[in-house]
Amino acid sequence: MRRHVEQHFTGSDTVRDVVIGMSDGLTVPFALAAGLTGAIASSGIIVTAGLAEIAAGSIAMGLGGYLAARSDAEHYASELKREELEIVEKPAAERQEIADVFASYGLSAAESAPVVEALASRPNQWRDFMMRFELGLEKPDPRRSVRSALTIAVSYIVGGFVPLASYIVTSDAELALKVSIAVTLTALIIFGYVKGRFTGAHPLKSALQTAAIGSIAAGAAFGIARLIG
Amino acid sequence: MRRHVEQHFTGSDTVRDVVIGMSDGLTVPFALAAGLTGAIASSGIIVTAGLAEIAAGSIAMGLGGYLAARSDAEHYASELKREELEIVEKPAAERQEIADVFASYGLSAAESAPVVEALASRPNQWRDFMMRFELGLEKPDPRRSVRSALTIAVSYIVGGFVPLASYIVTSDAELALKVSIAVTLTALIIFGYVKGRFTGAHPLKSALQTAAIGSIAAGAAFGIARLIG
Repeated sequence: MRRHVEQHFTGSDTVRDVVIGMSDGLTVPFALAAGLTGAIASSGIIVTAGLAEIAAGSIAMGLGGYLAARSDAEHYASELKREELEIVEKPAAERQEIADVFASYGLSAAESAPVVEALASRPNQWRDFMMRFELGLEKPDPRRSVRSALTIAVSYIVGGFVPLASYIVTSDAELALKVSIAVTLTALIIFGYVKGRFTGAHPLKSALQTAAIGSIAAGAAFGIARLIG
Repeated sequence: MRRHVEQHFTGSDTVRDVVIGMSDGLTVPFALAAGLTGAIASSGIIVTAGLAEIAAGSIAMGLGGYLAARSDAEHYASELKREELEIVEKPAAERQEIADVFASYGLSAAESAPVVEALASRPNQWRDFMMRFELGLEKPDPRRSVRSALTIAVSYIVGGFVPLASYIVTSDAELALKVSIAVTLTALIIFGYVKGRFTGAHPLKSALQTAAIGSIAAGAAFGIARLIG
């Protein structure tokens, strides 16, 4: 049963939300600040831009996550109502749909008939079976939307302050960039490693990939800002 | 069957990727530019910061999407292999797992027995059934990772140039901000409306929500930048 525990853990919504928020929170403000250092010598404007970005990014992602979770819940509720109605109004068609699910796995009508009959006599389980196996919808957690929004936003803010801290401490942008690169790459490697452990990916590979994304994004931002700045 | 078509459309990966990229692409560069206008009078630095942000955001989200799709595919492949192995090595336990799936819908062992037998005689369908119904995993499209990365990144870039265009055209940041607000709010409303049509949400509600997120993010970024800038 170990696999099932892992499976469940892999899909943990909170871990997923932390990963969503922190991946971008560590990367985008890091790259923006690095990019601006290519064009501007003073830390002041970089800190202003970085904090504005953290505010914008955390709100956009947090509220985006909130609305996504809300609309998942609404979609599930409306499909549930429709499924309940159809079971009452078109039971023959719905029975056929159970058989169709099994037919797609090569089962004959005769082979699936006992399960069709058993489900047809239990309306609630029938409805739940159709939701999951016909429509592929999982019942969403009703408290998820607010928690998801906050988890994503806070993770973005926490992540965003890691690359920005050095620019806040010193007004020498060049020096701040060097410290920011060292600190953020370390954070990206640790974050990628932990993320790999949680999601079942190879931790070292995940660490390197996460650091690579941050480096490429920062390099591109730096190059573009230097080109036009 | 209309429902199934809609259902499929709702889940369209490309639409999802466009929505992911463009939601943040329209919002974050808009809010960053608006925020910087609260602290800086000249468009030049705002354009530099905006372009650096677009580069950073599109790369972070695009590569993030690429790795997510890749790791989904790897996870699916490794679970598929494990399921195939278990069917050969522990057929009794796997048969019990089929019965367990049905037991969670209130079916007795006797009622699910014919389906258990039928699946047990078809190893490939048995494996596919377990992947979907025990583990809840959908077979990922192998070409998805690269396409997903490009769709997200291009959508972010297209979205990001909408709020930034006015700052590129005029050096008067205050004027550019006013034009940017008008253009971007219009774009957010249209994008939210179209998104609502595609995802099955109420289009007008989706339009207002999308515009609200952009406005709140931009307002927060503006406030923070003015406070410290």
